Order: sequence, then C-alpha cells, then structure tokens
Amino acid sequence: MVTELEILVRSTEIDVNGHVNNAKYLEYLEWGREDWYEQCGLDYETLKNLGIVTVVAHVSANYRRESVQNDRLRIQTRLKEVGNTSFRMQQFIYNQRDELVLDAEFVVVTVNPDTHQKVRVPDEIRAKVFQP
Amino acid sequence: MVTELEILVRSTEIDVNGHVNNAKYLEYLEWGREDWYEQCGLDYETLKNLGIVTVVAHVSANYRRESVQNDRLRIQTRLKEVGNTSFRMQQFIYNQRDELVLDAEFVVVTVNPDTHQKVRVPDEIRAKVFQP
Amino acid sequence: MVTELEILVRSTEIDVNGHVNNAKYLEYLEWGREDWYEQCGLDYETLKNLGIVTVVAHVSANYRRESVQNDRLRIQTRLKEVGNTSFRMQQFIYNQRDELVLDAEFVVVTVNPDTHQKVRVPDEIRAKVFQP
Amino acid sequence: MVTELEILVRSTEIDVNGHVNNAKYLEYLEWGREDWYEQCGLDYETLKNLGIVTVVAHVSANYRRESVQNDRLRIQTRLKEVGNTSFRMQQFIYNQRDELVLDAEFVVVTVNPDTHQKVRVPDEIRAKVFQP
Repeated sequence: MVTELEILVRSTEIDVNGHVNNAKYLEYLEWGREDWYEQCGLDYETLKNLGIVTVVAHVSANYRRESVQNDRLRIQTRLKEVGNTSFRMQQFIYNQRDELVLDAEFVVVTVNPDTHQKVRVPDEIRAKVFQP
Repeated sequence: MVTELEILVRSTEIDVNGHVNNAKYLEYLEWGREDWYEQCGLDYETLKNLGIVTVVAHVSANYRRESVQNDRLRIQTRLKEVGNTSFRMQQFIYNQRDELVLDAEFVVVTVNPDTHQKVRVPDEIRAKVFQP
Repeated sequence: MVTELEILVRSTEIDVNGHVNNAKYLEYLEWGREDWYEQCGLDYETLKNLGIVTVVAHVSANYRRESVQNDRLRIQTRLKEVGNTSFRMQQFIYNQRDELVLDAEFVVVTVNPDTHQKVRVPDEIRAKVFQP
Repeated sequence: MVTELEILVRSTEIDVNGHVNNAKYLEYLEWGREDWYEQCGLDYETLKNLGIVTVVAHVSANYRRESVQNDRLRIQTRLKEVGNTSFRMQQFIYNQRDELVLDAEFVVVTVNPDTHQKVRVPDEIRAKVFQP
C-alpha cells in the first residue's frame, strides 16, 4: 500500500524567501499520512475503536529542493516497518517535474486513548506494511 | 553561546487533540534559531553582507512530551559543530515544569545568495560553536 | 468573471473544537483571490508591470456554518465594484452540501510598488467587474 | 475592563512580501480575545460551566499599517456592547511606535455546548462591558 496525495502550494504557505518553509512541509506530510490512514480504512474513529491513538515520536527529514507558489506536489506515503508498540512511515515529496523535494521518516507510537500507555500495534496496521 | 527564547502556547497553535501539533514545533524551533542568529549579531542582513544565506537541509526531532494551551516553553539553541559548507544546530524545548518536551538537530547549509552554490561557512559563525 | 476554487479541509487546519478556525478562513479566501487574479491573467508579475501591487485595506466576513476535516469547500470570488484607487471583491464559501459557510467582502487598494502611494486602479482590473 | 497583550512578530508569521499577512492578524486578535476572557476569569471551562460556548459570527477589520518581523505589537481588547444572545468586542493593534496597525470588531454568539442553540449571554459577561 503506497498512497499519493497531490496538493498545490498556496500563497499563504510560502515565506519571505518566496519558498515553502521547512516547518510547512511537516503539515504537508501530515496531510499525506492522514490520507494514507483513510485509504487504508484506518481513520481516527476506526483506530479508536481498536483501542489506540497514534502519536508522532520522531521525525527525520531531508530537504532536497525548494518549492514555490503554484508548485504541484505529490506526497507519497508508505508503512516501512512495524515494531511492538511503534511503526515507521516513509514519505517522499515530488514536484511537477518529478524531482525529489523532500524525503522523511516518522516513528509513530500507538497509545491507549485513556491511559496514554503504549499498546501493541494492532494487526490491522501490520497488514499494511509496504511490500516492494 | 546558548540562547533561550521563552514563548507561550497560543490557542490557534493547538490541534483537534488539544496539544501542539508536530509541525508547529518546527516553527517554534525556527523562532529559536532566528533569536540565536540575532543574539550572535548574525542577522539576515549581516549574513548577506558576508556573502551567504542559510538553508535548512536536514532536521531530526524527538517528541518527548505534549504541550497544551498556555504552556510556557523555553527554546534552547546552540551551535554544535561546523563543517566546510554546513553546520549543525542543537535545540531543546522545555516546559514550565522543566520537563524536556522536544530535542532536535538541524543541518544548515551556507549558500551564495545569487548563485545558490554552497560556500564555506564564514568564520563569524565558526566562532560561535558551543563550548560546554 | 466569477472564479471557483475547490479545496479540502486538512487535519492541520482544524482547531481544538474540531472545526476550521475563523482566522483560517481568511487564508482560504486569499487562495480564492489569488486564483481569481491568475484566471483573469492578472498575476503578481503582470500587475507589477502595470505599476501596481494590491494591498488588503478592509475585510468584513460573516461566519454562517462550521466546517470540519475533509469538508470539500468551494470558494467563489468576484469583483463587485471599482473605485478610483481601490476595488471591492466579494467572496462566498460553500460546502459539499451547497450550504453557505461564509460570505465576505474585501476592499483592496492599488499602490505603487516603490513609493507605496495609492494609484488609480488599472483598466485591466476594471474590465473584470462582475456583470450579473 | 480593557486588556492588552504584547507579542513579537515571528519569522514564520510574515509572508513573501515581508509583512504580516491579513489572515495572520486574525490569529493575533484571537490571542487577544483569549487573554481578555482569561483576565476576566471567564476561561473556556468557566464558560462551559455557565452553559455556553462562544462562536465568532462576524468580523470587520481595517488594516491601517503593515507590520514586519520583530515588530512588537500590543493587542487591545474590550467588550463594546452586549445584546440578547450575542456581544460585540472591539480590538486595536498598535506597534512599538504607538501607531495604529489594525482595528476590528467581532460579533460573538453564545450557544449551548450540546444543542448548539443560541442562549442568553450570561450576566458574568455582561458585567465586563467597557465603561469609557
């Protein structure tokens, strides 16, 4: 399962230097992960019914190329691997010239919505690991 | 040289879960780095006169604790090490209970404002490496 | 000339109450006006060559209904009337159920890019007034 | 009761033109109103216990002067008048040179948290009307 979300860079998303700021890309990446969850049938309510909420514990990102207003970006998202109480997602952003703009990895932890204790990643998520 | 910037978490900075979103912290960190540059006497204009602009090439961040509205956060920023055409900054965010909320490292590249080619990190920045 | 821009409400665009915050709508409206300028062949560079930049001087907006994540919003934009050195734009946001979410009016002033003095609205903009 | 909140314009809050964008000011104004509620002893929980939540129904704002990075802005907030199920707040933003940057009025509606029906503005809010 690899999902791809296409977005257009908006005027209020560029900074004084005329390009997308490093922090804004993390919003784009969250939109991509939300889209992945939804396309996997694992939206917020479904996960809550499975007894978990997901929390970002770590991000690592490489900024490769700048983006400007009206750039058409494709955000690719995949589940790379699953541990006991966390999993690792991999994301890539490409522009309309198919150039790599950014690559990133997120470690996401599964916790109980009430106790906030770490809980085992449910099988419904494990089933979605990307098989190249 | 270690700088510390204090901020208050505002209502529009928390998400549907009632805490600061992972992307928003990267804005806080940028505010902290801007403050570091200014306190070092290395603001945007000064750097431009030295023939460089700074570009974020990499971020790595660990989210340790959540933050909620009206939390008073301290953003600590230091220059960890300097390479040929890039340097590494280290940042920590603490809350009003002195708990570590987040730690992060940024790799920042120095480029020529006109050609966008990488150039050597100027001595004015090298002089600011943190000595523990 | 009436333009219509369709957007999807993203996870990072909703606040702690689970709906789009009043300030965020003004970003949506700016995206709509940018789209109007571009569809009219009046992008930033073209306007600058005509000797003007546009500056928002006034906004008035009525919030009619709330929006939530994944709502599909249509932003309608039209030029309502043109004065000597300013013009009035009218905007409406509808959701996927064709319910009116927001209506707004902006007064936009045309100024010289260098002197920042008000200048006459160019004929290229006047020609675009909406004729019902 | 007039409250005044001081903020510093941050790097990520200015747009490609180097000044604070029209939408961003509405976030500043919300911070000012939140501060007013809290200084009045009328925070979110207290209002909920009084059987209401507040919803913005209308905004009208005049942009008087631009703001740039590191500007120190003072956001003044007062309750102008109270109707049956709504009230009107007035806000002013001044910069470090005491120049008026923006003035705005908000109509805020009081609704029942569960039914979302309009309810009478509680006396606790009525008591806070600004007396010049």
